[in-house]
Amino acid sequence: MPASFSAQFIIFGLHINKIKNLNQKNMAELTPEHAKSYIEANKDRFLNELFELLRIPSVSADSKFKGDVRQAADYVKAALLKAGADLAEVCETEGHPVVYGEKMIDPSLPTVLVYGHYDVQPADPYELWDSPPFEPVVKDGKIYARGACDDKGQMYMHIKAFETMSKNGGAPYNLKFMIEGEEEIGSENLAVFVEQNKEKLNADLILISDTSIISTEHPSITVGLRGLSYVEIEVTGPNRDLHSGVYGGAVANPINTLCEMIASLKDENNHITIPGFYDKVEELSTAQRDAINKAPFDLSEYKRELGIKDIEGEAGYSTLERTGIRPTLDVNGIWGGYIGEGAKTVLPSKAYAKISMRLVPHQINDEITELFTKHFESIAPDSVTVKVTPHHGGDGVVVPTDSIGYKAAEKAFEDAWGKTPIPTRDGGSIPIVSMFQEVLGLDSILMGFGLDDDAIHSPNEKYGVFNFLKGIETIVRFHQRFAEMKK
Amino acid sequence: MPASFSAQFIIFGLHINKIKNLNQKNMAELTPEHAKSYIEANKDRFLNELFELLRIPSVSADSKFKGDVRQAADYVKAALLKAGADLAEVCETEGHPVVYGEKMIDPSLPTVLVYGHYDVQPADPYELWDSPPFEPVVKDGKIYARGACDDKGQMYMHIKAFETMSKNGGAPYNLKFMIEGEEEIGSENLAVFVEQNKEKLNADLILISDTSIISTEHPSITVGLRGLSYVEIEVTGPNRDLHSGVYGGAVANPINTLCEMIASLKDENNHITIPGFYDKVEELSTAQRDAINKAPFDLSEYKRELGIKDIEGEAGYSTLERTGIRPTLDVNGIWGGYIGEGAKTVLPSKAYAKISMRLVPHQINDEITELFTKHFESIAPDSVTVKVTPHHGGDGVVVPTDSIGYKAAEKAFEDAWGKTPIPTRDGGSIPIVSMFQEVLGLDSILMGFGLDDDAIHSPNEKYGVFNFLKGIETIVRFHQRFAEMKK
Repeated sequence: MPASFSAQFIIFGLHINKIKNLNQKNMAELTPEHAKSYIEANKDRFLNELFELLRIPSVSADSKFKGDVRQAADYVKAALLKAGADLAEVCETEGHPVVYGEKMIDPSLPTVLVYGHYDVQPADPYELWDSPPFEPVVKDGKIYARGACDDKGQMYMHIKAFETMSKNGGAPYNLKFMIEGEEEIGSENLAVFVEQNKEKLNADLILISDTSIISTEHPSITVGLRGLSYVEIEVTGPNRDLHSGVYGGAVANPINTLCEMIASLKDENNHITIPGFYDKVEELSTAQRDAINKAPFDLSEYKRELGIKDIEGEAGYSTLERTGIRPTLDVNGIWGGYIGEGAKTVLPSKAYAKISMRLVPHQINDEITELFTKHFESIAPDSVTVKVTPHHGGDGVVVPTDSIGYKAAEKAFEDAWGKTPIPTRDGGSIPIVSMFQEVLGLDSILMGFGLDDDAIHSPNEKYGVFNFLKGIETIVRFHQRFAEMKK
Repeated sequence: MPASFSAQFIIFGLHINKIKNLNQKNMAELTPEHAKSYIEANKDRFLNELFELLRIPSVSADSKFKGDVRQAADYVKAALLKAGADLAEVCETEGHPVVYGEKMIDPSLPTVLVYGHYDVQPADPYELWDSPPFEPVVKDGKIYARGACDDKGQMYMHIKAFETMSKNGGAPYNLKFMIEGEEEIGSENLAVFVEQNKEKLNADLILISDTSIISTEHPSITVGLRGLSYVEIEVTGPNRDLHSGVYGGAVANPINTLCEMIASLKDENNHITIPGFYDKVEELSTAQRDAINKAPFDLSEYKRELGIKDIEGEAGYSTLERTGIRPTLDVNGIWGGYIGEGAKTVLPSKAYAKISMRLVPHQINDEITELFTKHFESIAPDSVTVKVTPHHGGDGVVVPTDSIGYKAAEKAFEDAWGKTPIPTRDGGSIPIVSMFQEVLGLDSILMGFGLDDDAIHSPNEKYGVFNFLKGIETIVRFHQRFAEMKK
């Protein structure tokens, strides 16, 4: 709604008049139309820059890409400086570095800290990609590449929104950027960095684009994220691989045992059986559940798009509830025995699994990891030994919808999309959001522009060119709206 | 018992007098002492020849070793000719070749067909070997190498027993050799070869060394082998890998589902739940079970040697029964999702397993494979699709202990080891034994010399030098005893 915005904008301009003449003048010039035409005029360059970043295989999980991860950090630093930052630095950590950048207009003005990540998920299995994961291409208006959506594409929108403001009179307040390289492996070193740089990271709000909208027809803002507990399991039977003909039937097979143990983690209603697992799970009111179930959702389209005959989940809950407000348990990987071509009659010594649990608000990652470990050890028969190793994790998050930040984001969507965004609870996890709350005392606004079928973490990850450009526009509007509402 | 043997041998010598003077004369010269000293005098060469064969990584399951498998076939052909065969040939099949060789003394004399295999199991995981699998070494009197026992070492004993006879007057009757290259992958092309060469393979008996003795203190002859049904499972959930945060809890995870399906294949008593699975299983009498349980077995030593706190198996049966007379079901391999370093929150599209069932006599491989497939498909929830692909298999075998072949083997052990061998039922499977019975109408004598802890199919496979040399001696005695008893 550009008209009402303009009116409010003038008021804003008058206020900052006292502070900085140049800004006032230039900001007044950056009308929504002006921002839009700047983005339109520069879109090919914006995309080409993103493609350069997408070509760097910055897979944080796999140490063989260590140099590439570093190269991506350097690229982000340079991009921040080019976009108008006064300062940008690649900050060392025990693992991959954090890129920090800032544009300080005036310390007395509000400050927004943008968070994103430049690392990506592993791209394997490579053979399932229609085009190589690190050679971005645009097909049917979508950018195909690992990281196109998660999170290089979404993170880069912020740098280009910053540029759009910088080149057109400057941002309306102070901007800080913290772009990390370990989001896909648990952000452990980011937590240390944040702890050590509380002063530097001081801000009014954190802005993050690493989530999805319902559809381009139904923009939405994420107001809930699930937490995550991720463990790796090792089950050991005999001290060496055995011949299944000689020992089979008399010695526990760790694969069979692991399967039995995994199967026992859910009952016939797909309820998780770990004692205490649901103790802190928030039970929503009928009204709250009704609101969730009002979001547009077409089950037969969902099944068709996934190629499945039927869905499956916890009894008593809808699909939107199962992915939004209920905790889950998934095996993300399993391996053991002979997995090559042909047949081998081995009774293996060891079997392994990677298991993650999505947690809802109030469930604490560390507590759940401990409950899992205790339970898993307790159900192991004497014929095997089990080892549970925690990977990264994080707690769930609920974003209040009555904050200025949320209202500004809502307005920004209304301005750019002509529609009021629907508040949604996402199934995914951004573990650092609860950490930011805890360590910095800051709320985050989760203003993502991906789509659920963008295949993040899958082969053929994509991100719409429309979403990328519209996202930049929306982010510019957010900063203008937030500046205005903070007066 | 050389004394009583000598007496019988003279009678034998008189019998064949009518047939072939030369053979009679020379065989009469090959006393047990003479054979023993020939083996002793040539043992270093015998071992060096075996080592050459062990150095060839003839892994039949993995196509990247195809050339090596061929090289092993050529080696066996050359070794047969050198040992005294009139004819030796590498016979093409649709897969790896069969080596056939023969020494025809006189068509009217008995003929024994020796079966063995020159292919080996995959050697991975390589990192668990104390010395490289294809660089044989002798440590503490054991030959360490993939195939040392299964079956290169045991097969090569027959070639060296043949040489021992050839160089000392000749074998007492016709000998044929059929050494295949696909035993570890199901002998499918051998079945075709046998079907197409019934005439050529005509014999009185098949002699095989691909089994174990209880211990060097307790020689034994295998009189029962379990059959094998081996299937590969593919479980498909969604049509692509998904983000477990976005879809987890609402879409079936094929790994969880596979685990649940595998877990359901056994009940709390470790009884297999496939309908009809036990229908044809022979129930042994108390006397028969008592006989089995009289075999020397030390449970605490068994557990200590395997490094396990407890054993696990079908309720109501002893360890010897579980591995000898009861059918089993083992997962030999499982894989799916992300199995690399670190964590990936993927809900995979597919999960896989290799499952084998050991069958007891009267259970038919094809029937069991069909029962498994039908059952597995029937328990699959609508949220996934499953595909069951049969690998190789074979039926169980019972060897009659009142045949001339068995009696000759028993005598040969008595001659060479000074002890009457114990008839045992082995847990393993040699699927071709029932095929030989069916297609050629021939019984097999399973005169193996391995030990259960030889780690066949495992890292650090070994074979005793003692077993190798004593085996050659015993095989020579078998041929002499069988010739004598067939008079």
